[in-house]
Amino acid sequence: MSAAPVVNSPIDLASWSQRHLSRVEEALSRWVGEGAPAGLGEAMRYAVLDGGKRLRPLLVLAAEEAVCSGADIAASAHAVSDGAALRAACAVELIHAYSLVHDDMPCMDNDVLRRGKPTVHVQFGEAQALLAGDALQAFAFELLTPDDGSVPAAMQATLCRLLARAAGSAGMAGGQAIDLASVGLALTEDQLRHMHRLKTGALLQGSVMMGVACGPADARAHEALSDYGAVMGLAFQVVDDILDVVADSATLGKTAGKDAASDKPTYVSLLGLAPAQAYARELQVQAHAALARSGLADTRALAALADMVVDRTH
Amino acid sequence: MSAAPVVNSPIDLASWSQRHLSRVEEALSRWVGEGAPAGLGEAMRYAVLDGGKRLRPLLVLAAEEAVCSGADIAASAHAVSDGAALRAACAVELIHAYSLVHDDMPCMDNDVLRRGKPTVHVQFGEAQALLAGDALQAFAFELLTPDDGSVPAAMQATLCRLLARAAGSAGMAGGQAIDLASVGLALTEDQLRHMHRLKTGALLQGSVMMGVACGPADARAHEALSDYGAVMGLAFQVVDDILDVVADSATLGKTAGKDAASDKPTYVSLLGLAPAQAYARELQVQAHAALARSGLADTRALAALADMVVDRTH
Repeated sequence: MSAAPVVNSPIDLASWSQRHLSRVEEALSRWVGEGAPAGLGEAMRYAVLDGGKRLRPLLVLAAEEAVCSGADIAASAHAVSDGAALRAACAVELIHAYSLVHDDMPCMDNDVLRRGKPTVHVQFGEAQALLAGDALQAFAFELLTPDDGSVPAAMQATLCRLLARAAGSAGMAGGQAIDLASVGLALTEDQLRHMHRLKTGALLQGSVMMGVACGPADARAHEALSDYGAVMGLAFQVVDDILDVVADSATLGKTAGKDAASDKPTYVSLLGLAPAQAYARELQVQAHAALARSGLADTRALAALADMVVDRTH
Repeated sequence: MSAAPVVNSPIDLASWSQRHLSRVEEALSRWVGEGAPAGLGEAMRYAVLDGGKRLRPLLVLAAEEAVCSGADIAASAHAVSDGAALRAACAVELIHAYSLVHDDMPCMDNDVLRRGKPTVHVQFGEAQALLAGDALQAFAFELLTPDDGSVPAAMQATLCRLLARAAGSAGMAGGQAIDLASVGLALTEDQLRHMHRLKTGALLQGSVMMGVACGPADARAHEALSDYGAVMGLAFQVVDDILDVVADSATLGKTAGKDAASDKPTYVSLLGLAPAQAYARELQVQAHAALARSGLADTRALAALADMVVDRTH
């Protein structure tokens, strides 16, 4: 990696996000449900398209941009990185989307509304929702393994490994199982942190590391962005717990106060509101510190995403 | 590939299977649920261990053995092929197992018994069953992407691609969706064949092709084993439909006559019993013909598996 000068001028996250999300939305719209039987494809598209903050795809793309920043790589290698990162961005969103579909089902959270729309099982029936979630998970790995030569095989293997670990029993699915078993229990802060590190943290950190895997990164950058990803996972959850208490349902786009009502342990119930807010600020500082020690030329998008996660109101 | 003499001496499928299955069972027992939270890991192991014919793993291992037979490869390359094939064999079984867990759930087939034991959702609750299935699918891809250097990256990528396609919306999950939509409908033979080609055929053919991907195979062998896999998928389903009518529940290990009771279209309901039996025989002949044109030195295990699929009584 060349020692390019660090770029410090501010970034306009809104326009940066819009530019990158238009690629993600276009790709998802083109890919999801393609070749699926009509009903299943419709349910898959309903679950994925036109919704959500797309935080995970943005983390993938920002991380890829950061590791490529200042690196002395050919335009052709850049195109490969960009193409791989777009696939990775869509793949993590598919995993996130499938987890919401299954999470909303009657045997889990039994939610009937998501982003102001009927949830997938309400719209298409439980069986179709179950299958759509299953098919979305498989499709995430299909997206990561094109046979058109556009993504090097070694990169495909690394991306599949990162995604499988982030999604599986030592990641997202494992965290959901701990969450399920912890309703009504008094968790310690360590236990709560462990649960969230798996449930939401693993896929958020995995998103960052998948972006890293799409470009060149030395050990220093690799370690720093891994730390950044871990901190972001925690910060996201702490803020989620705060918003569940302080925001109203209309702003949140989902039922507020639900955690307290369902007796789920949260950072707010454990730490109190003000200490939880202070903790979120501390994590924001830690995220910036990790970026500063990455040695990368331009980590502005990652920095802006850290601010966005902590400052968001929904 | 060297032109080794074709081996025609009979194979003892029982001892061949036992030898290979002991590796599969040992590996599954070692790997499944490792690192998972206690409850989730238990449900995953319950779903996978100690049950089933393991047809898919056997197809992987037999295909790998066939493409390596007579090939002039070093012992070290052979060890890589064997190790990769064992992982692939376990991965396809994980996908099969997860599909059964989700299939048995109340919103799908609502089955309470599987292989004489309570189904996963009966034993562990619906939410845990849903998560265990999800985690098993992720774990299949984790198994295919070890970071210990034991499986070449290009082989990992190919195996993930084959498995994702076989499991997803243009494969198993897609077939299940068509099945779901076709209850009570009069399908044509073409529609029925398309449904089963996806629902059970894709993963059976995928198993064969994953075995092929673990070893050296020229275009001729590749095409012939792809044909063999497609025929095996069909044969398996035709025989399943026949057994649903002619076998009793005790022999079958599941409720017999269930297809007719649930008004599901089958090869027997469409063709009649005797023509369905004749069709199964014809597919058996086609499977052997595909093996004969593969140019491989030793396809005896694949041939014996074809006979087993057609001749089985449960």
